[in-house]
Amino acid sequence: MGKLIKGKPVADAITLEVKKDVEHLKQNNIFPKLKIVRIGEREDDIAYERAALKRMQTCDIACEVVALPAEISQEDFILKLKSVNDDKTVHGILLFRPLPKHIDEDKVKYIINAEKDIDCFNPINVSKVMEGDETGFSPCTPTASMEILKYYNVEIRGKLAVVVGRSMVVGKPLSMLLLKEDATVLMCHSKTENLKELTSKADILIAAVGKAKMITKDYIKQGSTVIDVGINIEQDGNLFGDVNTDDCLEKSGLITPVPLGVGSVTTAVLAKHLVKATKLSILY
Amino acid sequence: MGKLIKGKPVADAITLEVKKDVEHLKQNNIFPKLKIVRIGEREDDIAYERAALKRMQTCDIACEVVALPAEISQEDFILKLKSVNDDKTVHGILLFRPLPKHIDEDKVKYIINAEKDIDCFNPINVSKVMEGDETGFSPCTPTASMEILKYYNVEIRGKLAVVVGRSMVVGKPLSMLLLKEDATVLMCHSKTENLKELTSKADILIAAVGKAKMITKDYIKQGSTVIDVGINIEQDGNLFGDVNTDDCLEKSGLITPVPLGVGSVTTAVLAKHLVKATKLSILY
Repeated sequence: MGKLIKGKPVADAITLEVKKDVEHLKQNNIFPKLKIVRIGEREDDIAYERAALKRMQTCDIACEVVALPAEISQEDFILKLKSVNDDKTVHGILLFRPLPKHIDEDKVKYIINAEKDIDCFNPINVSKVMEGDETGFSPCTPTASMEILKYYNVEIRGKLAVVVGRSMVVGKPLSMLLLKEDATVLMCHSKTENLKELTSKADILIAAVGKAKMITKDYIKQGSTVIDVGINIEQDGNLFGDVNTDDCLEKSGLITPVPLGVGSVTTAVLAKHLVKATKLSILY
Repeated sequence: MGKLIKGKPVADAITLEVKKDVEHLKQNNIFPKLKIVRIGEREDDIAYERAALKRMQTCDIACEVVALPAEISQEDFILKLKSVNDDKTVHGILLFRPLPKHIDEDKVKYIINAEKDIDCFNPINVSKVMEGDETGFSPCTPTASMEILKYYNVEIRGKLAVVVGRSMVVGKPLSMLLLKEDATVLMCHSKTENLKELTSKADILIAAVGKAKMITKDYIKQGSTVIDVGINIEQDGNLFGDVNTDDCLEKSGLITPVPLGVGSVTTAVLAKHLVKATKLSILY
């Protein structure tokens, strides 16, 4: 019988560390501040924003939201983003993506200073993730998955980690983070032949496909660790991961639920990154 | 019985295309120029430099070498590199790596403009390789491996490609290039458990470990494609790849030799990238 591993204890442990750091920074008259930049009113952005605001409050980190109209011109948006970036009181910036289609991401991604780019938008940080250089920022969701593995003492080194999904937000960076911890990493995706045969070899299976309950027990190895990064909202409003948790629980070793899994650790990682960015700002 | 697939026909085909492009550019009064920057007199740098000069000559591309003393200070080196980078008649720069230990690569890698960075040193290009964005430059050696696979019509999409070795020069970027072509990609390395078991499942096996003749027939799948990226010079001066080609030939489907394999395609890719950089310079 597998064990359900929830995100909350992981998030709580990170939050505790962050709070200590924040307290120490404030004693030295440094006041960490996060700025969230949102274009439009997308529901999932607003849900995440609410969670982030709550986490920052718990951590005693100042957090301000810059909400911009969905139809803002690229020119105006760039000016706005530059002014946020130039603000010396701001230590980290979270910009919601994907950006609206009329804004060219390639023109924007260099604007946020690498040192303030706490969710890995700037190519300098993307490149550092690939190099395994920990001086940069990895994206929060894959990092949250790594924090869960570490918190629950999952052995990574030498083990076979299979990542299903190859997005720039989860699959690819998470593959690099696992590789950095010496996992043997298999990257699978929609074009993969014999997917089930491959995933059922995984010591650690990461599901980041975007298909509700796609991973059933036939896809997993007996006793393996299953991390569900999927966020799929069904027509009835219910939230499901990429894993059919009920079906897999018995066969798995450890398995994260959705909700209350990876998602609940993400804002804690964001807070941790904000503190790291604040410390970096002292060095520069 | 496997077939030995050599690099020369691949390099020749690329060279032919490059020559046509160069002729066309010259008719429009644009004269492609490569600058090679070398610090010290490392033997393998000089061997590659010689090969590159010859290829550029074949392609009618101007090529100049800036040879700097091994003991050059970081400050002087940066000044020199900046002046090469600012030279508007130079379209592409090849800087030999690794740099001497007294020069901080992190301080140098942003200097070469991404548009002139034809061997993927600048993080902007590293990030593009990870994103699968073909507007940048991928490093020449992994790109040469891809050119071989394409020239010999090796099916990549959906197939299992196993990459042994995770360097930033070959293993990691090649994994990303294979992923971009829809391979299912397994990244193995020195900490991988049961390596032989994993590699023997590979439809395409890439050896980039740096251990002479390590891959024997027990490591490969019957009828598979084996690409040997290893360059190991033995004490007697002989050059060996990572694959024991004699041992694997019978069992493989297609297999590249060393020498006369991937290495002979690398300078052709360099020439191709130089032409691409020249075309980019017209746009900017």
